[in-house]
This record gives sequence, structure tokens and C-alpha cells, in this order.
Amino acid sequence: MTKTSTGNFFEDFRIGALIQHATPRTLTVGDVALYNGLYGPRFAVQSSDVFAKAIGYPRAPIDDLLVFHVVFGRTVPDISINAVANLGYAGCRFLAPVYPGDTLNATSEVIGLKENSNRKTGLVFVRSTGFNPDGGKVLEYVRWVMVRKQNEDAPAPPDHVPRVPEALLPSMLGDACPAIDGAAYDTVLAGSPYRFDDYQVGERIDHVDGITVEEAEHQIATRLYQNPARIHFNLYAEAKGRFGRRLIYGGHVISLARTLTFNGFANAFHVAAINGGRHVAPIFAGDTVFAWSEVLGKAELPERNDVAALRLRTIATKNRPCDDFPHKIGGEDDPAVVLELDYWVLLPR
Amino acid sequence: MTKTSTGNFFEDFRIGALIQHATPRTLTVGDVALYNGLYGPRFAVQSSDVFAKAIGYPRAPIDDLLVFHVVFGRTVPDISINAVANLGYAGCRFLAPVYPGDTLNATSEVIGLKENSNRKTGLVFVRSTGFNPDGGKVLEYVRWVMVRKQNEDAPAPPDHVPRVPEALLPSMLGDACPAIDGAAYDTVLAGSPYRFDDYQVGERIDHVDGITVEEAEHQIATRLYQNPARIHFNLYAEAKGRFGRRLIYGGHVISLARTLTFNGFANAFHVAAINGGRHVAPIFAGDTVFAWSEVLGKAELPERNDVAALRLRTIATKNRPCDDFPHKIGGEDDPAVVLELDYWVLLPR
Amino acid sequence: MTKTSTGNFFEDFRIGALIQHATPRTLTVGDVALYNGLYGPRFAVQSSDVFAKAIGYPRAPIDDLLVFHVVFGRTVPDISINAVANLGYAGCRFLAPVYPGDTLNATSEVIGLKENSNRKTGLVFVRSTGFNPDGGKVLEYVRWVMVRKQNEDAPAPPDHVPRVPEALLPSMLGDACPAIDGAAYDTVLAGSPYRFDDYQVGERIDHVDGITVEEAEHQIATRLYQNPARIHFNLYAEAKGRFGRRLIYGGHVISLARTLTFNGFANAFHVAAINGGRHVAPIFAGDTVFAWSEVLGKAELPERNDVAALRLRTIATKNRPCDDFPHKIGGEDDPAVVLELDYWVLLPR
Repeated sequence: MTKTSTGNFFEDFRIGALIQHATPRTLTVGDVALYNGLYGPRFAVQSSDVFAKAIGYPRAPIDDLLVFHVVFGRTVPDISINAVANLGYAGCRFLAPVYPGDTLNATSEVIGLKENSNRKTGLVFVRSTGFNPDGGKVLEYVRWVMVRKQNEDAPAPPDHVPRVPEALLPSMLGDACPAIDGAAYDTVLAGSPYRFDDYQVGERIDHVDGITVEEAEHQIATRLYQNPARIHFNLYAEAKGRFGRRLIYGGHVISLARTLTFNGFANAFHVAAINGGRHVAPIFAGDTVFAWSEVLGKAELPERNDVAALRLRTIATKNRPCDDFPHKIGGEDDPAVVLELDYWVLLPR
Repeated sequence: MTKTSTGNFFEDFRIGALIQHATPRTLTVGDVALYNGLYGPRFAVQSSDVFAKAIGYPRAPIDDLLVFHVVFGRTVPDISINAVANLGYAGCRFLAPVYPGDTLNATSEVIGLKENSNRKTGLVFVRSTGFNPDGGKVLEYVRWVMVRKQNEDAPAPPDHVPRVPEALLPSMLGDACPAIDGAAYDTVLAGSPYRFDDYQVGERIDHVDGITVEEAEHQIATRLYQNPARIHFNLYAEAKGRFGRRLIYGGHVISLARTLTFNGFANAFHVAAINGGRHVAPIFAGDTVFAWSEVLGKAELPERNDVAALRLRTIATKNRPCDDFPHKIGGEDDPAVVLELDYWVLLPR
Repeated sequence: MTKTSTGNFFEDFRIGALIQHATPRTLTVGDVALYNGLYGPRFAVQSSDVFAKAIGYPRAPIDDLLVFHVVFGRTVPDISINAVANLGYAGCRFLAPVYPGDTLNATSEVIGLKENSNRKTGLVFVRSTGFNPDGGKVLEYVRWVMVRKQNEDAPAPPDHVPRVPEALLPSMLGDACPAIDGAAYDTVLAGSPYRFDDYQVGERIDHVDGITVEEAEHQIATRLYQNPARIHFNLYAEAKGRFGRRLIYGGHVISLARTLTFNGFANAFHVAAINGGRHVAPIFAGDTVFAWSEVLGKAELPERNDVAALRLRTIATKNRPCDDFPHKIGGEDDPAVVLELDYWVLLPR
């Protein structure tokens, strides 16, 4: 019997199973620097210890999406190493700020299973949690993926399709954001005069810029997250595969889109929650990613006067500028759309 | 009205305006590591805390050009996001050493404006300053760029062409270099026996090696500096643009050239000033950069016996070795030349 | 006379010469992050300060191979800048753990010389040592390279071929591994249930995954190690050279192979020694690296009950999966093989 891990196939999952993922990870300023080199975010809070301290953080926190990718990376060997499609996220909440020196572990609970009618694959729903070794949660989210069966004849567990979380309520936001001193929040240094009150529901913003992705970049990023999904790294195998080339980790697109949103939402310094995310189409090296956003909602946070939340839908496209806000065509996704992300960001009042 | 920043066009600048740039940045050992991976500098002072301490620094300082690029990056959204050409630098002085953990802010003062006769563009001259949040200056330089007008009919401010600084005087050098213990400076560990006294004015040195640039490398570098100039990242747009492809940030070439000069000037551990820099021609991914240097001058520093200054002119070329010191052909730039940099470096006596 | 270093040619070496290499280097968490981005290792001890402390380290140690590459990088300007082939390693021992903040220096002693019959090249054998500035050794190894003569007519030193070290004895292993608390070593967090006792001599493990290498990746890696060997960076010159393109640093393949072995040896947290390494064939950007390993031996360490050693032979291939354990064909290397590495790893009992 080989000692090589093949990961879990669809028939290996059981409802209620709690999976402790391997490879705890201490995040450092080195990770932050490489993340910056890969995406180029310009939010002042994450960029400057001095700015962060002035408004109430002990130092610059680690970018929320870097935390997300690192927690996600831990889950891959157990959850999605045999996935054929990463279908969606929901109910993703950031629960505590993370700083250089902090260590992250991750677990996943299997909350749903449904075999597909072809009996070759099935849907797996998990609730994954990132936490400090002392047990403090920093992140949780629900994710569903389509996973291959190893043996088509293997009996499948009974179907159990969970209720996927709805958009998070404003009362569930803000745990990862300390009390902010809004007067000390310098909008000139942050790069935009627009605070929470300046945005309107329904407002659409084209983020203008485009970023072309290189193979080396997405490979370095995905390895930084210790995400070993083979489809991102192995040209020899993928040349014969579905796309004929390496697929880019969907989270890479999320981080590119988040970076692009700086131009329009420079004061949206914290991603508090992701209500739902959908990778509409794959991207490949050489593609140029653009994005635009719509303000879907606005909310005050209970007992907080320092920050408030915008609910955004950011659409990312490939090889198509977003000045006309591409989204749907006749009810179908515009073929240029690669990502649809519904999330809450916090801004100073 | 959109909240997207379009940056300043030529008609938006006013003489005397002081622009506070956004996105303060805390530099870390992570930034240093990535800079090292992108260029491969081998100067002992920046490479080793132990070496740096032995000669009088509290720890290894951050590479001067990393400081330059980070300050420069802050200025781009306000000064040159709508530039068509980055014409030159002058009067660049490094004023204080920068260490991991330090935070940098930047401002620019508009010191010159001149509309071009086509009325489509104009020259903008700024004096940019990088400083610590406590106000201590770490870097200043004058830069001029050609910036597009948004509206050709917009009235232009009256011409005001400033006097561009001449080469810096030796008395203006050395503020970023603490007192050095020359006896503790180990030339074997530094990689060369040649100290200040060993160089002659007029001496020419071919730096021999060549470095080929990849798209991923210059994109990662330019993002590390949080320089969002679109021309470096957006293949979709640039494929239809002037060059048909992404242009590489000129500062990337400066850092490559500086790295190449190690072979010949290994003890030139500090760039004290840049008298003038000129990007003679663009480079693109796949190009191989070579360099050679000439010693233009030598100078002692007032009241300092520890270090002295060489004035160098480094010429970088693309796809052409420099063993015959290419520079001008019949008074015109050799077509292989991409960079001409006139600067002062400090060496131990 | 130029001040450019041309490095040593074969005729410049003398038996017994002790070479102090330049460019001391302080390793940081930044270097660790970039190493992680370039290879994606998932060994828990190096990934998590908390995991490392729990078992007896003061914090997460730096990956053994990063230490190797950095020491090796220091030796290149003096030993192999004029090499035509890097022939082998042997007797490589890791002698002390290295942590972020530690500084490494390197020396080499010339222990063997043998001119080739063509008189154009010769073999140079060195024993290289990496050490802390306080003199504590962290690494030593023997390496032999084929180096060009600058002048074919130059007299060569008398032949002296040293005895290349045999495989290291178990009694020589473990100096870089502190006492480990095996009960605190969490195999779930480490990613595999298999401890030392679970492996059998003769056991073969296919590591399954493949990693495709990009030009930007190996260039960034090799520069991170401050290894200036020209063949890795200069497309202009190499396009006319032996391979028509840039050659990838052999150590890059070693790190890729080590990363791949995680799947099968997740608890082999420390490379204690390299008995011998051979770069069987070059790899180039675009190649996909696979690997498999055989357990050549097992050994307890004198007076240690915490850890024990497996002797592994890892074979890396290019563009060829390893499910049938490719190695030799009719006594010759399988043409897909690029690396054969014989080394000792430590696992918890």
C-alpha cells in the first residue's frame, strides 16, 4: 500500500465528519511582501503600521484575502484535491484580525453531500474554519465543490443538501475590525475622500485598470498559500486535460479584483464578509482581468459609530474593459465574466 | 460622477501646488527579500546585519533603490498616471538610511509646467520627497514627465520651466550614511579589494553579465512598489498601444544596472545621489540588460575621512554586451542604449 | 587592468587553498516566504512557529535546502563562475539549525584538482562550509565541478583526486535537529500518520504530482540565493550557447523534488545529510518535474530516541510521470531522469 495521499474522493466523505487539516502556518511580513508583489494592493491600513496604529490597530493587519487563501489552501488536500469544479462560497466571515507572527490552522466539517446522476461525481459542502492555535476563530466559510468518485460503483451516502447561507446580516459583521478612530483616519493618505456616507445603493463603479496574469505569478501565489491543487502547476498533465493548459486558482482572480476596486473604494479597508462567490469562467495566463462593482446595500453596524458596511457586487472579466458594466446577456452570464463576488466591506463613517 | 480617480491631467497642475500622496508604506524584511529575488544585489552592507553593524549601521539598511522605487511609486497616481513619457530625474539625494520597520510617506511640489506646442501634452516638473511620518526626509528628487491633457481646449497655465538641478556637490552627499569604521570594513567579505583610492577618473568598467527580464518579474517588482502605472500591467490595452506590449518600469532597469555594477564596484555600498537619469529607450520582456560604467569624478566629503564619493555614469544596453563601451554614435545615442545614469556612490577610504 | 572579477579558472586553483567567499547574508522571514512561493513546501516544522516550538525548536527553522542554496550561492563567484558542468555533491551535513535573523558566511577549501586530457578544462573538488559569524558551522559539503581554463597553455597543478566521502554514517546525523518531543509531534497536523517505524527498506513511493517551471521562477530563486552564475540569467548569450536557452540552477530541481516528496514523507521534517547528488540532465523553463523515492536504508541515531533516519534515493524526471519508477535503462540513466539524490532525512519515532 502506498503512503502517497490521494486525498478524499466523493465516496470518502461522510456528513458530519470533522476534518483537521494539516500544515499549520505562521504568517509573516514576508508573506505580506510577496502578496503585495503579486497583486499590488494599496489600502493604507494594510500598507502602513503607522496608519494602522493611528486608527486603532496594534499594527498593520494582514490582508483579509491573504488570510482567506491561506486557510483555503490548508483545506485543499482533504477537500478538493480531486475536485472537478469549485462551485461556490457563501457565509464567509472574517472573525478576528490577523497579524504577522500569527499562526493559522484549519478544519472543515462536511455539511452536505449529493451524488450527481452520472454517478461519476458528487457535490460536497463543507464549513471550513481558520483559527489560531489557542482556538480563536479568524475565518469561517461554506464552500461547495464537485468531487470525482474514485470508483463509480462505490455506494454514495444519502443526499443531504444543506441550506447555503444567505447574505450575512450587518449584525454579523465587524468582529475582525477593532474600534476605529475615524478622526484619525486620514482620507488623503488613504487615497480617496469618499467615506461610507458618500456611496449610494445602486451606484456602479468601473475600476478602469486591467492586470495581465503570468504563469509564474499564479504559481507563486498558489504555492504561497500552500494550495497543492495539481491543475495549477502541472503543464505536462494539463496539456492533455480539459483546458489544454494550467488553470489559474480562482482565489487569484478574487485578489486581483479586490486590488482593482481600490480605484473607487480606497477607504473600504476591510473585507468583513463574503456573502457569495462564483467562478463563472476560468482564466489562464495571458488573460487580462478587469472589474467593476455595484453597491448592493448599505448598513450600519449595531453599536458601532466608527465604521459601516457597503455590500458590493464585484464583477471581474477577462480581456474586456468594464466601462459598460458587463454582467448578463439575455439572462446568461456575459461570456467575458469570470467572477461574481457579493461581499461586505467596511468603511469609516 | 464617478468615484474612480483618473489622476491629474496636464491642465490640472498648478505651479506651487503641494501634493500629499496616498498609501503610506511600512518597509519590511519581506520587501527586502523580494527585491533581492528580483535583482540579486550582492553588496555586503545591505545583505548582512552583521557586516552592517560591524561598520557602524544599527543593522542592514534597505537598498537605496528600493527606497527610491517605493517613494516614486507613491507619486505615480497623482503625477504620472497620465504620462506619455518619463523624461528625466535630477537632484536626487538620499537623506537618511531606511531600515525594515520604517514607514515612508511622499509629497510632490509642482515646480514647473510647459505646454507643448501641439496642445495635447505638457511637461510637468515636480520635486518629490519621501519622509518618515515624524517628518524626517529620506529622499528628494526632481522629475519631469510629459503628461496628456484631458481636454485639448483646456487653458494651460503659463509656462514656467525651472532650472533643473546640476550635479550634486560633494558637500551635499552622505546624509544617509552613518560614520563608517573603515578598518572594520572587510573587503574580502565585500567581494573586492578596491576602495575609493583605487579608482581613477576616466576609468571604464564593463560589468560583463547580462540579465534577461521576464514579464512576471517586472510586474511583481512594480507592484511591490505599489506603482500602478497601467502601461506595465495591461496587455489587453497595450497590445493596441504604442509598443504593442507592456512597457517595463524604467526603475526596473536602474535596479538591474545597479546590480550589474557590483562586478567592478563591490565596495560602492551606498548610492548617495542621482545627478541625472535618462531612459533613452524602453525595454520589454525578453530583453537582456547589460551595463558599463565610467568614473566621471572623485570627491572627498567635507569632514569625513571614512567614506568618499565616486561620480559614475552607468550606461545600460539591451541585447548588446558592453565590452566596447557603447554610448553615442555620431552624437546620437547608440540604439542599444536604454539608460544613462549619472550618480554618486560612496566607498570606504 | 580591469576591476571586474572574472572568477577563478582551472589554472588559478591550488590544492589546500582556503577561499573566504564574499557577501555574508542575513536570512529573514522574507527569504522564507519567497522560498515558499517558489516551491510550496508543506512540512509543518518549517511552516509553523507553534508546531516547531511544541516539539522542541525555539521557532520554525529555515528550510534546510534554503540554507544549502544560500551557502552554495556564496561559493559560485569563486568556484564555479567558469564551470562548464556541476558534477556532483557528497558528504553534505547540516550541522546546526538556522533561524530567521541568522547570518551565514561561507568558505571553501580546494581538496582536489585534475586537468582533463583536452587541457581545456579540469576538475575542481572543494569542501565548502557555511557558518555563523561566531564560527559555528551550519553546513558542510564536498562538491566537484568541471572548470574551464582561461589559457589552455597554462601549466596545471599536479593531479590530486580526493576520496569523495561515502554515504554519511548515522552517527554523523542529527546535529541540526534539537531534541524532539515525539509525543507533541502531531501527525495529523503534519499531514501523514507514517513515522519512522512505518517505512521499510526497499519501499518505493511515487510522489505523483508534477510542477512546471517558469523562467521567472528559477531566475528569482537563483537571485534569492545570490548565485550569479551567468548561464541562468542571460538569454542573449545562452541563445548562442550549448543549450540555446537559459539553464536552470540544479539546486532548483533539488528543492522541487524535496517539495514533491512531502506526499509520501510528510513527517521527514529535516534533511540531515546529502550523501550524494548528481544532476543527470539539465532542465529548462516549460519542463514539468516529477519525482519518486526509494528507501535505501534505515538507521537509529546514537543516544537518540526521539528521531531516526531514513536514507532515501529520490529520482526526479522531466516531462515523465514516475508511477513506474523510472531510473536506469540497460544500465544507462533513463533519458527522462534529471536528478538522482541520495540523502538522509529524520522522522519522529
